[in-house]
Amino acid sequence: MKELTTKEIDDVMKQSQEAFLLYRQVQGTAKALFLNSIAEEIESLGSDLIHQAMEETNLPEARLAGERGRTCNQLRQFAALVKDGSWVEARIDTAIPDRAPLPKPDLRKMMVPLGPVVVFGASNFPFAYSTAGVDTASALAAGCPVVLKAHPAHPKTSELVASAIEKATTKTGMPKNVFQHVHTPSFEGGKALVQSSFTKAVGFTGSFSGGKALYDYATQRPDPIPVFAEMGSINPVFILPGALKVRGEKVADMYAASITQSVGQFCTNPGLMLGLKSPELSQFTMQLSQKMEKIAPGTMLHPGIAANYKKNREKALAQKGVSLSAQSTDAAKENQAITTLTTVDASDFLVNPTLVEEVFGPYSLLVRAGNIDELKASLDKIPGQLTATIIGEEEDLIEYADFIRLVMQKVGRVIINGVPTGVEVCPSMHHGGPFPATTDSRFTSVGTDAIKRFVRPLSFQNFPDTLLPAELQQSNPLGIWRLFNNELGKK
Amino acid sequence: MKELTTKEIDDVMKQSQEAFLLYRQVQGTAKALFLNSIAEEIESLGSDLIHQAMEETNLPEARLAGERGRTCNQLRQFAALVKDGSWVEARIDTAIPDRAPLPKPDLRKMMVPLGPVVVFGASNFPFAYSTAGVDTASALAAGCPVVLKAHPAHPKTSELVASAIEKATTKTGMPKNVFQHVHTPSFEGGKALVQSSFTKAVGFTGSFSGGKALYDYATQRPDPIPVFAEMGSINPVFILPGALKVRGEKVADMYAASITQSVGQFCTNPGLMLGLKSPELSQFTMQLSQKMEKIAPGTMLHPGIAANYKKNREKALAQKGVSLSAQSTDAAKENQAITTLTTVDASDFLVNPTLVEEVFGPYSLLVRAGNIDELKASLDKIPGQLTATIIGEEEDLIEYADFIRLVMQKVGRVIINGVPTGVEVCPSMHHGGPFPATTDSRFTSVGTDAIKRFVRPLSFQNFPDTLLPAELQQSNPLGIWRLFNNELGKK
Repeated sequence: MKELTTKEIDDVMKQSQEAFLLYRQVQGTAKALFLNSIAEEIESLGSDLIHQAMEETNLPEARLAGERGRTCNQLRQFAALVKDGSWVEARIDTAIPDRAPLPKPDLRKMMVPLGPVVVFGASNFPFAYSTAGVDTASALAAGCPVVLKAHPAHPKTSELVASAIEKATTKTGMPKNVFQHVHTPSFEGGKALVQSSFTKAVGFTGSFSGGKALYDYATQRPDPIPVFAEMGSINPVFILPGALKVRGEKVADMYAASITQSVGQFCTNPGLMLGLKSPELSQFTMQLSQKMEKIAPGTMLHPGIAANYKKNREKALAQKGVSLSAQSTDAAKENQAITTLTTVDASDFLVNPTLVEEVFGPYSLLVRAGNIDELKASLDKIPGQLTATIIGEEEDLIEYADFIRLVMQKVGRVIINGVPTGVEVCPSMHHGGPFPATTDSRFTSVGTDAIKRFVRPLSFQNFPDTLLPAELQQSNPLGIWRLFNNELGKK
Repeated sequence: MKELTTKEIDDVMKQSQEAFLLYRQVQGTAKALFLNSIAEEIESLGSDLIHQAMEETNLPEARLAGERGRTCNQLRQFAALVKDGSWVEARIDTAIPDRAPLPKPDLRKMMVPLGPVVVFGASNFPFAYSTAGVDTASALAAGCPVVLKAHPAHPKTSELVASAIEKATTKTGMPKNVFQHVHTPSFEGGKALVQSSFTKAVGFTGSFSGGKALYDYATQRPDPIPVFAEMGSINPVFILPGALKVRGEKVADMYAASITQSVGQFCTNPGLMLGLKSPELSQFTMQLSQKMEKIAPGTMLHPGIAANYKKNREKALAQKGVSLSAQSTDAAKENQAITTLTTVDASDFLVNPTLVEEVFGPYSLLVRAGNIDELKASLDKIPGQLTATIIGEEEDLIEYADFIRLVMQKVGRVIINGVPTGVEVCPSMHHGGPFPATTDSRFTSVGTDAIKRFVRPLSFQNFPDTLLPAELQQSNPLGIWRLFNNELGKK
């Protein structure tokens, strides 16, 4: 693909700003038609899209079909959200002209879009976190035009999805350039997109080094802008003693599957497990090892990811005290990843920061703590995460309640007796954790609240009713939920 | 005051983290008692507090009494908010165990506190934006302990207010060190507070250079944290032709008062006015000048601010094309500020970035635009602002509707036919504008939504009901508003 010059990138962003002046005036019902139309056009691409993605990502057909479904579902959830309209957090405080000592003005507030948003597609989700993924869907729902930087690992898939968005743009009469698709595979191209004065926010899913670089560019601009970068996670799983006693084998089954799902290429992959030393933990390690050995190596998304897996796995295995507990019995072919389980004692884990680095792929490290103090100390060494999981019987959960509260400080989602993989798309999902899991733990990149990343509040003081946006007009013509003189209702 | 060492500062922050582990468990009703008790204890200080503040700030008694009232009102508004409890944005999606192809888990989400917050007191509001001001009140309401850096311009006033908070802490049984008061007048002290690994967010009101420095320290930490810095604003006022024709003199009255209120020491002071060249604009300038000349110089908050005003005013007057249109007839005594109105043609304004710099004090610059294009070009030169004001008759507002929409992109609040000074404390107030007015336009530092600065969402997946916070338990024991399976209600 031809690399764009910095001048061309700034022109693209300028066109995005011009589109913004029109698009921010578009009503919620019209934005809903647009988002639904994108979903329909993606579905209309049929098997061509799936086959193109299979060719570029090595992901199997069923997984890609499922991901396409999720992507269209997301678009439709945002369509429903903006059609309903209540998401703007309208607040109204009416005037009290005769208040002493000073009259109270009429004040009304709602969320308005930030402006042009740059989205970097992710390699591991060619649909759900890429071209028409949640970043694009939520930015368009918010009223922000999108400039999408295609992921160089699946440029043709990205082109196909972009063509669907362009069709929907025309069909529903949206402003020209409300969505633009660019190929700038180089690092410099991404930098220029973030540094353009027209860019008002950035969405990214990928590596720590990539996300942190974009964050630094954005915060060091003359006018800093927000970057929502999801940068990976090792998603610690704490396996408590009671559970190991009664259902160790079941837990091993569940985790052999979770660690290796999609060749371990999920940001919520459980890359770290921790338990208290006991005969039951030894037995669990053996059971999990036996199950993981049977899981054949899988082909990774692209050669770069496969090479990184190989390198990071070898680095982890070379650390002091780390033992290989299990690996796929079958040999790995080119670009395939060997399913791997390693173990280490907490005493070694505590002094080696390398062991909390992500090994992106079908890999997990099991830490054996000598006692609860070592378990707590191990938790202290784990940086911010997307998720943490607690496996425990009812009495475990009571006994370790204080510990679970400490875990909550580190993460964006806590799962009890489940697996972290499988991120449900719904309003109560929070997909975002303390740094370095993401650059901003206060915002989610999954679920309808993702729209909040691309808006800011604007207050309207003493406006004539006719000049107010419909959301704030006295008669509530859209029938949305509003906080009206401090009472929530549809008044 | 004795300067703290970096080690002592880190100890203070460590104590704050220890307090956090207890304080984050405190229920909303108990936090409400605490906040109400702080208000009561401040009121109990009576005239001692007012007299101490008068001595340290040169502000008059009535203004300080009013500001104390506002401060206690703010504390009580946050108390009511956390007592009600609905602010946590609870979302609940119940499980669908038999969903195909995969079961849906039970997911629940609410806002939780970030952790220890560092607050820098402001010089221009010794109560409302200082020791027990909105930053402290909203952080404590959120469940975050506060470390307050006393403003060196009013350390004794700050000590008195801190003693009230400490009394309230004891009386209501809050954790030790939930509030700590430190004097670290040096730049290095502030830096160490922001850089401590225990600090999770920062609130600041003051100069651009101060706020931007804190922002840079925070974003360049190994784990970046949010900084909410309000850094000043020139709050442009656009005076449209129709209004000048029918009520120029009334507008001049209103603005002579607004520009000079509290010796111009408000962050919403109207430091810039813009209009279209016409006989009416000339007459308005003359009328405003006559009124401003009569306003005697006032004593500023402290000698540093008075010296800065003198320097910045002289710098502005030395710029090409800038004329002195009015200044106080009375001479200025030591530390007093001369009321000043300057004028400039848009052609000079457009090419001189110095003219959008804030002159903090009783000063305003009036820009004469030759036509609407010059007015639009002038708007383009104005960076992000807290507020903008439009003075216009109904036909002005219709004729300039597109222009008003452009104005909205630049600011956090738009006022029609009023003045920007006088920031109402209510849910629909947004006090925060695009950079450089604040470091984060997405959050307010006035009104109950200020609590959102110090929280993040946390998802609970498949939790037993008894382990959930009360806000998310199935029976809704607190009776709060929740989004339950996508329906807002008190279910």
